[in-house]
Amino acid sequence: MTIARTPEPPYYAVIFTSRMSDGDNMGYGAMGNKMVELASQQTGFLGVESVRGGDGFGITVSYWTTLEAIEAWKNHSLHQVAQDKGKAEWYQQFGLRVAKVERDNFMGM
Amino acid sequence: MTIARTPEPPYYAVIFTSRMSDGDNMGYGAMGNKMVELASQQTGFLGVESVRGGDGFGITVSYWTTLEAIEAWKNHSLHQVAQDKGKAEWYQQFGLRVAKVERDNFMGM
Repeated sequence: MTIARTPEPPYYAVIFTSRMSDGDNMGYGAMGNKMVELASQQTGFLGVESVRGGDGFGITVSYWTTLEAIEAWKNHSLHQVAQDKGKAEWYQQFGLRVAKVERDNFMGM
Repeated sequence: MTIARTPEPPYYAVIFTSRMSDGDNMGYGAMGNKMVELASQQTGFLGVESVRGGDGFGITVSYWTTLEAIEAWKNHSLHQVAQDKGKAEWYQQFGLRVAKVERDNFMGM
């Protein structure tokens, strides 16, 4: 994983924080990779950063040009399938926040 | 780590994405814990979520009521010491983004 190279603000961030269900969570890794690949092909996608710790707690932040781009990705049919599986099986808990990035600052990039 | 219980939007998120320096990064863990404890005592602090992966890549998102609260925390003298150590020693790279949370959605909380 690397730090996303985003353009000058303003742009949008979707902060997705989750706790995995107990169990083997079969298919989750493959679906996650597929979703990152698919997201990166969508209009308005700017980048993604993602980490999951050993305790099953994870944070994924994706960056987008506009709220419309976020809405279109939310409604993408294959993403809908993944969301349904996530709610039904993979995630014990999650929080999703849509936020407008107003300023940013980088070191070493 | 748990998903932060934040109030109804709007509120602010500080998304801090970082890659650790190679080496033992002595003192980093203790300072990180101290900073979370200190941040949580500041006016306007709403919560924090943090994960670091085995590859040294980490995401910490802290939540705040206002930009003024974020600015005050940025300028806190002990936090300044930590920031200086971070830039000089612990972080190889980082990205810091300040964003206004406009909507959110939770499951299982």
